[in-house]
Amino acid sequence: MRRGTSRDIRTANRYEVLRQIIAQSPTSRQELAAATGLSLATVATLVGELLDLRMITEVGFEDSAGGRPRGLVAVNASGGALIGVDIAETYVHVELFDLALNVLARADEDVRPGESLPEQVVGHVAAAVGSVVAQAGIEGARVLGVGVSVPGQVDRATGVSEYAPNWNWHDVPLLDLLTEHIAYPLYLDNPLRASAVAELWFGAVRGRGDAVVVNLGTGVGAGLVLGGALHRGVSNSAGEWGHTTIVLDGRLCRCGKNGCVEAYVGASGIMLTLRELCPDSTLLHPEDQTATIDALAQALRENDPVALKVVRETVKYLGAGIADLVNLFNPEVVVLSSWVASALGEPLVAEVREGVARHALPRPMAATEIVLSPIPTDPVCLGAATFALEGALQSVGQRPAPQRARQHGKNRTVTP
Amino acid sequence: MRRGTSRDIRTANRYEVLRQIIAQSPTSRQELAAATGLSLATVATLVGELLDLRMITEVGFEDSAGGRPRGLVAVNASGGALIGVDIAETYVHVELFDLALNVLARADEDVRPGESLPEQVVGHVAAAVGSVVAQAGIEGARVLGVGVSVPGQVDRATGVSEYAPNWNWHDVPLLDLLTEHIAYPLYLDNPLRASAVAELWFGAVRGRGDAVVVNLGTGVGAGLVLGGALHRGVSNSAGEWGHTTIVLDGRLCRCGKNGCVEAYVGASGIMLTLRELCPDSTLLHPEDQTATIDALAQALRENDPVALKVVRETVKYLGAGIADLVNLFNPEVVVLSSWVASALGEPLVAEVREGVARHALPRPMAATEIVLSPIPTDPVCLGAATFALEGALQSVGQRPAPQRARQHGKNRTVTP
Ligand SMILES: [Zn+2]
Ligand SMILES: [Zn+2]
Repeated sequence: MRRGTSRDIRTANRYEVLRQIIAQSPTSRQELAAATGLSLATVATLVGELLDLRMITEVGFEDSAGGRPRGLVAVNASGGALIGVDIAETYVHVELFDLALNVLARADEDVRPGESLPEQVVGHVAAAVGSVVAQAGIEGARVLGVGVSVPGQVDRATGVSEYAPNWNWHDVPLLDLLTEHIAYPLYLDNPLRASAVAELWFGAVRGRGDAVVVNLGTGVGAGLVLGGALHRGVSNSAGEWGHTTIVLDGRLCRCGKNGCVEAYVGASGIMLTLRELCPDSTLLHPEDQTATIDALAQALRENDPVALKVVRETVKYLGAGIADLVNLFNPEVVVLSSWVASALGEPLVAEVREGVARHALPRPMAATEIVLSPIPTDPVCLGAATFALEGALQSVGQRPAPQRARQHGKNRTVTP
Repeated sequence: MRRGTSRDIRTANRYEVLRQIIAQSPTSRQELAAATGLSLATVATLVGELLDLRMITEVGFEDSAGGRPRGLVAVNASGGALIGVDIAETYVHVELFDLALNVLARADEDVRPGESLPEQVVGHVAAAVGSVVAQAGIEGARVLGVGVSVPGQVDRATGVSEYAPNWNWHDVPLLDLLTEHIAYPLYLDNPLRASAVAELWFGAVRGRGDAVVVNLGTGVGAGLVLGGALHRGVSNSAGEWGHTTIVLDGRLCRCGKNGCVEAYVGASGIMLTLRELCPDSTLLHPEDQTATIDALAQALRENDPVALKVVRETVKYLGAGIADLVNLFNPEVVVLSSWVASALGEPLVAEVREGVARHALPRPMAATEIVLSPIPTDPVCLGAATFALEGALQSVGQRPAPQRARQHGKNRTVTP
C-alpha cells in the first residue's frame, strides 16, 4: 500500500481520472468510478475540477438501464497543448500534442557524433520546440508544459542529468539550460520511463498489470510497469537492464564495466558484432549507427546471410537478457521499443521469441507475450508529454510557483 | 492502481489492519487510519470484524490531546495458532506461532540426498507438524491454518508444485498429498515470497517501499517488495534471479541452462568452486552441503586463506548478480537471507558490499543498503505462517468451504 499526503493522493486520483477520460471519451462518471476503483462521489468532485480547468467538457447524456440519463464528459482536445521532447544519442525528436494526445506538429534534429556539449544539445531542443509551436500556430499560453526525456540517470526534482554515458555528462543542470530558451514549465525524465508510460496509456501495456518495455537504441534499458503503475525505484533509476551483466568479464561497456547487456545489443554493440563477423561488409557505415542499422534492416528483409548472422549473434545475448527479465518480473508482456527495434522489426521479434524461450523458465515464459511497440509515432515524445500533463495537474492550485526546484551553486562537469 | 472486486479489497484492507495491529500493539483506530491510509470509518468497521473474530481485543484507553480518550486494541495472541512450514532441499523446518507471531514450538527434520519422492518429503512435514502441535499442547481447533513453502515454482490456487529443480518434481499435487496427513487448512507458496513477507512484517524491509530479499541456500532467488507490497508477477513466479544468466555459456545449472547465477552462488555451486580451487581441502564434505558450508563458515571466521579465496571467488558472481538487482529495481535495501547467508554471516556481507559496488551504477548503488536478515528464527516459516493468516482472513464468511481448489484427475510426474 503506497502512502502519501492527501494532496499527493488527490493529484494522483485527478491524473488517473483524466487518463481514463483521454483513453476513452466520451465516458460517464459511473464508468470512471468502475475503471478507477474510486467512489462515485470522489469521481464527481475530480470531474468537477477538470471541468473548471477546461481540460474536459460535458458532451451530453446517455440512457442508463432504468435510471436517470447519465451525463457524459470528454477530453477537451483544445483545452491545452503539451510538448514531448525525446533527446537521444543521434537525434532530437519533438512533438506537440493536443490534450487528447493527438500529434499536431513534429520537428526532428540530427545530433552528430561530435556534438556532446550540453549547449549543443540544448540548441537542438530549443530550435525544434520553436518549430513545433510555430507549425501548430497556437498561442504559447496554451502550452501547459514540456516533458523532456534524456538518456541515462536523471534527478527529476532538480532537473539535473546526473549521468549520460554517451556524452559522458555528469551532473548537467539540463532544465536550467533549457529555461534560458524555453518559457514553458519543463519536466525531466528518461526514455525508459517515458516509453513505459506511453505503452501503458496507448500501447501494448494498456489494461495490463505487469509489463517490461525493452528499449533498444544506442543505449538499452527496461521501463517497468508493475501493479499497473510505473516502477521508478527509490531514486528514480530503476530499469538499468542495459548495465546488468550477461557475460562476466566480457566486452567493455561505455559505462566502464565489462559484459553488460548493452555492450552486445545496443546499436554500437551490434555494429561491433558486424565488424567482428564480417569486417568488409558493405552494411557497415563506420561512425554512423543509424545508417548501419538501416542497412542491416534492409538486408534482413532481403534474407541477406550476413545480416541474418549478425541478428542471430545479437539475439544470443538479447534473448538471454530478456529471459532474465521474464524470470525476474514474470510479466504479461514484453514490448520491444525504440529505433533499433523499430528498424529491425518483426524479423527481429521472431528471433527474439525463440532466443528468450531457450533461456527462460517454462512457467514465466508461458505467461509472457513478446511484441513490437504498436505506437506509430515516437513513444518517448508521447510519454514525455504525459509527464508534462502530470506536472500541470500537480501545479493546480499552486500557480504560479515554478514546476521544479531551481539549481543554485551546483557545478556542472562535462568530461569530453 | 490495482483493481479487484470489492470483496478482494475488503479482505486486503482487513489483512492490512491486522498486520498493523500485530506490528504494533496496543494501537488506536486513529493510528491505524494514519498507518494504512484508510478512512477512520473503514478502520472502525474492520476493527469491529477483527474483534468479532476474537483475533484482537480491546485493551483500554489513551488520552488524546484535548479530545475524548481513544480506545486501544491489541492482537489477541491466544486467539488462534498458525503453522509455518519451510521445506528446503536439505531440511524441513516447522514452527507454530500464536497470533502475535511469537514462536511457541519448533520441529526440524533432515531431508537426506536420496529422499526425493514427494511421499518422503510429505512424511517429514506431517511428522514435524504433529510434533509442534503436541509440543504446544493446543487444541487443533485453534490452528487457523498451515502455510507451506516449497522451493521452485508453485501454483497457489491448485496447491501444485509445478517445478522443484532439486528433486526434479513436475506438477506434484503437494497440498493434496499433505491433506492425507494434516487436517488444517493448507496454503502453498515458495520461499522467495515467504522470506520477503517476513522481512516486510518483522525484518529489514519494515516501513520500506522497494526491497529485494536475496535467498542464498541450495537454490537461490530474490523475493521482491515493490511499492510496499509483495510482487508476485502475473503467474506467481517472479523473482527467479537464480536462473538469470551471469556467464553466457558458463557452468551447467540444474535447471538445464548454462551460466545461471545459482550455478555459482548456490550451495552446490560454492562446493564446486571449493573443489576447483582446492580439490583436497578438508573443508569439503562430499555429498553434504550443510557440513561443507558450516566448515567454510568456521574457517572464514578463522581467516583461513582457502575459505577466503572461495568466498571471494563466489562473490565475483554474487556481487555482479546482486548489482544486476540494484540496477534493475533501484531498491532501498537488499537483504541477504536463508541458510548459506546466515552461516557465512557478516564476513560474507562485507565482501558482497564491495563486490556489488564494483558492478552497480553509482546512482542506484548510493540509494541501497545491503544487510543480513535480522530475523532470529527461520524467516520462511514466519512468512509461510503469514500466508496462513491471510488465507484465514480470506475465508471469513465463506466457511466451511475448502481453502483451495482440489486437484481432480491431474497426473503427477516425478522423474527421478
Ligand atoms: Zn554497462
Ligand atoms: Zn538455472
